[in-house]
Amino acid sequence: MDNIASGAAVLGAGGGGNVEGGSLFLKSAMQTYGNVKLLSLEELKDEDLVVPLGEMGAPVVGLEKFGETKDARLVVEFLCEKLGRKATAVSAVEVGGSNSMVPMVAGLGLGVPMLDADSMGRAFPETQMTSFHLHGLVASPFAVMDERGNRVMIEATDTFWGEKIARSVTSLMGARSFVATFGMSGKTARESCIGGTITLSQKIGEALNRTHSSESRLEALASLTGGLTLFKGKIVDVNRQTVGGFNRGDVTIEGTEENSGVSCKITFQNENLVCLAGNKVLATVPDIITILNSETLNAITTEELRYGYRVTVIGIPSAPIWRTPPGIQVAGPRYFDYDLDFIPVEIRARAD
Amino acid sequence: MDNIASGAAVLGAGGGGNVEGGSLFLKSAMQTYGNVKLLSLEELKDEDLVVPLGEMGAPVVGLEKFGETKDARLVVEFLCEKLGRKATAVSAVEVGGSNSMVPMVAGLGLGVPMLDADSMGRAFPETQMTSFHLHGLVASPFAVMDERGNRVMIEATDTFWGEKIARSVTSLMGARSFVATFGMSGKTARESCIGGTITLSQKIGEALNRTHSSESRLEALASLTGGLTLFKGKIVDVNRQTVGGFNRGDVTIEGTEENSGVSCKITFQNENLVCLAGNKVLATVPDIITILNSETLNAITTEELRYGYRVTVIGIPSAPIWRTPPGIQVAGPRYFDYDLDFIPVEIRARAD
Repeated sequence: MDNIASGAAVLGAGGGGNVEGGSLFLKSAMQTYGNVKLLSLEELKDEDLVVPLGEMGAPVVGLEKFGETKDARLVVEFLCEKLGRKATAVSAVEVGGSNSMVPMVAGLGLGVPMLDADSMGRAFPETQMTSFHLHGLVASPFAVMDERGNRVMIEATDTFWGEKIARSVTSLMGARSFVATFGMSGKTARESCIGGTITLSQKIGEALNRTHSSESRLEALASLTGGLTLFKGKIVDVNRQTVGGFNRGDVTIEGTEENSGVSCKITFQNENLVCLAGNKVLATVPDIITILNSETLNAITTEELRYGYRVTVIGIPSAPIWRTPPGIQVAGPRYFDYDLDFIPVEIRARAD
Repeated sequence: MDNIASGAAVLGAGGGGNVEGGSLFLKSAMQTYGNVKLLSLEELKDEDLVVPLGEMGAPVVGLEKFGETKDARLVVEFLCEKLGRKATAVSAVEVGGSNSMVPMVAGLGLGVPMLDADSMGRAFPETQMTSFHLHGLVASPFAVMDERGNRVMIEATDTFWGEKIARSVTSLMGARSFVATFGMSGKTARESCIGGTITLSQKIGEALNRTHSSESRLEALASLTGGLTLFKGKIVDVNRQTVGGFNRGDVTIEGTEENSGVSCKITFQNENLVCLAGNKVLATVPDIITILNSETLNAITTEELRYGYRVTVIGIPSAPIWRTPPGIQVAGPRYFDYDLDFIPVEIRARAD
């Protein structure tokens, strides 16, 4: 479980929720319910009802407002009440420190398996940045709940409206909620999910948590994900605000070793968006930019960035669906108001 | 109908939506469906299902975003879908230029009567400022819809949360929505509504629209409502912003006739809240402060206040429920952050 959490945090691109919070949340549920059952996409039956779920909001608030394990189950039951059917499986919306764990907790509470899949292959800040949306599914009905028991069911005309309304409600609820949407048949899930991302997280976690040199662990990461080391240095500045239900800000890293004399800046909206060294773009969304603690090689999520940390920035190619024109349109740099074209991280590196 | 609209605007305290918009909305529905059936509280059967509804948001936006008559019906049907029963009557939440008309339009579309009642006896900006809330009812489920077809069903832990979530959704929808909540039995409606407010609006409208001198028309208004003339003058300044799904601001009136040499300031949050002349408080919420056009004696809603208008400010005692300690607590000056005690407008006037 710790391997899944730390591997998911690497794919989480700085978002997807806090690793320790997610692990504690899951361990507490496992004490009551036992082990999580993981189901591959291939094992799904056509008539299954799959409910994707997660936490929404600014992860920095998630650190302070620790949910109860029952909340994960309740939001699935809330959506199922609307759909008029029981869920036979749950799924992650995104891969990340806590958002890979929340569906496991819900699955345990409901007695149903969790898919070895998600809809991003990483973490992204908004609901339209999902393989579900790219496959033409609409995030409606969209269930939102808070820890007080306030429940909101959104029926939106499209996924963009679903996201906007859910975000506004989440913001009002204190910038953190549990959400479930895109309830779908097993058949649709097989066609629209990104498969294998939970077991990939586990392999990444295993590789990084071994007692080898950091070089060899980074090599193992590279062979699993195609990830590249982009920059090494020390955090010298962090700007972070909770705005509109997101963490927004940037981090400045002063280069060390082969990067000494150069300064690197990474901007984020929950997840890391663009990585610049000097005036050179090293990577942009939809590719995965993750900041690792240079010593432990644990991923540092955007709410945990602190002055003084020695860090290694890595860039991982995103799932193929994000590198298509529709993927770039909803999750590329221009969507986030950067006047940059998307160029795959490995091609930017080769241009050196 | 024009009499109801203009009388309701007087009780609307500057809010409750635009008079002309509301009248046009209703006339368009009457062309299709015929006349509105009005039902007194006494005529309700215990087992009736009454659905109160209205528009939520900043009235200044209501001026620009003119809804379709079907939207009023659809929001009732949306709530009824959740309640699992059909409405047998509709009701206004508040009395006001358009919010008295919207339920009539819904009633016409549904083929059910409209109650001669509301829950404020005036207009107020927030959902907890209702006789329903004071009677211990909770605004949940709470249906919110926009003209695009986005639908949100809120199940809140209390009316304050219902209001906050609905307001945030309304704000996101462009500061205007149709809402229905507090669905209740006929028995509960008889106990918790403020009765007779639609026919009272009609009588006020008739009195003010007669071709008599303004003095005699104001006297007729006084005998119907206990209303007092507080100030006469000319508008010299208006500040108005759309903030958090409300119109907020203030208007400054330079005194003429018996008030010449004195300046009057009225602050508002959709509805007029406090009226000051010089340093003297003339009236505060929950009493009704309404600004009339001195020539026509039509009420001027807060979104229509303009430099140069000659106006007569009147103060009308609020319904008795608002003058109780619980009423003052949710709708008195301190709720709106004024360091003032509530003193009935007629007592303030006598202290002169």
